[in-house]
Amino acid sequence: MDQEYASSLLENAVRELSRLPGIGRKTALRLALHILRRDESEGVALGESIIDLRKNIRYCRVCHNISESELCPVCGSAGRDHSCVCVVENVRDVMSIENTGQYAGVYHVLGGVISPMDGIGPDQLEIDSLVERVKAEGVKEVILALAATMEGDTTNFYIYRKLGNIPNLKITQLARGMAVGNEIEYTDELTLGRSILQRTLFCDSFNS
Amino acid sequence: MDQEYASSLLENAVRELSRLPGIGRKTALRLALHILRRDESEGVALGESIIDLRKNIRYCRVCHNISESELCPVCGSAGRDHSCVCVVENVRDVMSIENTGQYAGVYHVLGGVISPMDGIGPDQLEIDSLVERVKAEGVKEVILALAATMEGDTTNFYIYRKLGNIPNLKITQLARGMAVGNEIEYTDELTLGRSILQRTLFCDSFNS
Repeated sequence: MDQEYASSLLENAVRELSRLPGIGRKTALRLALHILRRDESEGVALGESIIDLRKNIRYCRVCHNISESELCPVCGSAGRDHSCVCVVENVRDVMSIENTGQYAGVYHVLGGVISPMDGIGPDQLEIDSLVERVKAEGVKEVILALAATMEGDTTNFYIYRKLGNIPNLKITQLARGMAVGNEIEYTDELTLGRSILQRTLFCDSFNS
Repeated sequence: MDQEYASSLLENAVRELSRLPGIGRKTALRLALHILRRDESEGVALGESIIDLRKNIRYCRVCHNISESELCPVCGSAGRDHSCVCVVENVRDVMSIENTGQYAGVYHVLGGVISPMDGIGPDQLEIDSLVERVKAEGVKEVILALAATMEGDTTNFYIYRKLGNIPNLKITQLARGMAVGNEIEYTDELTLGRSILQRTLFCDSFNS
């Protein structure tokens, strides 16, 4: 055989599939052969859904969440509290928070966190648009919901400095402490230390 | 949000991707968001390569390997020994043997092995076409290259019974024994026992 895979069609599909994260050439080949074994309609549906996704998806003008129209369903909803903006790193975080069913405000997707190691500075993130938005729209609270990492903390602090001088704006961050279901013994010291310092009133836990 | 993913395009792509083997909804979402982050051309190329693959690939009329024309490159090659047919379970096995660079004959892809547990009988495999082919084309040797499992052995034996009465036909199977690089101590007893019974002349190992 001239080429490794007997067919340039297979070769192509394997090459394209193996560009996906976590998918090497062996897995890509397995996927391609699986697609070949199934109905033609199934393979075509997969291919078309990917093309559709990439060609037709847009980003919300206000919060930069993915959307099919100019405004995402959250920003477009009259039932959400538009005076409370939750700042998240990416689209997946929006989904995670939405899935809790505990949040009725709107979002602002930064598109990453400040990370000098990866060459990501504040200019590459949607921080300026956040500041403009908060100033223009009469936002009352900004919730910083970034990862509890060095990069997340840096970004939190940067945003805090940019927003801190806006009058009557409450800036909050996600509670940090023991995960629900965790045992004291297995909670790391830093987290446990914070949980003690930032202990909350016991009655709050069943009143809310 | 009405739906889990803010966008039906994303929802579609995730559903189609998660039909692939070993890809759950979380991984599918990660892949879809990765596709969204990359260039549009890359996503479109992936989608099109999958559609192309599924729509345009064919199977070789003779050996049932995947092909882009009526005959696969192996069956169509004048440089291969068409009197030696290597019987394999699937397309991936053809690639594995081709990659060794040690085989100059042709193949016959069964499409599986006999497995009553999975409801796969001889009728669902390309065994009849193998028998016809061997009878019609003056094949001199059939190499049984199926997995060294119960199912593989059953299939080997079934094929042997179908072909055993053809005069002047040599039926062989892959050598079974210690893997190259293995230590005696860690080789399982069955394999080691076979390796002793089917020991080969030492001089053969460097003459060939």
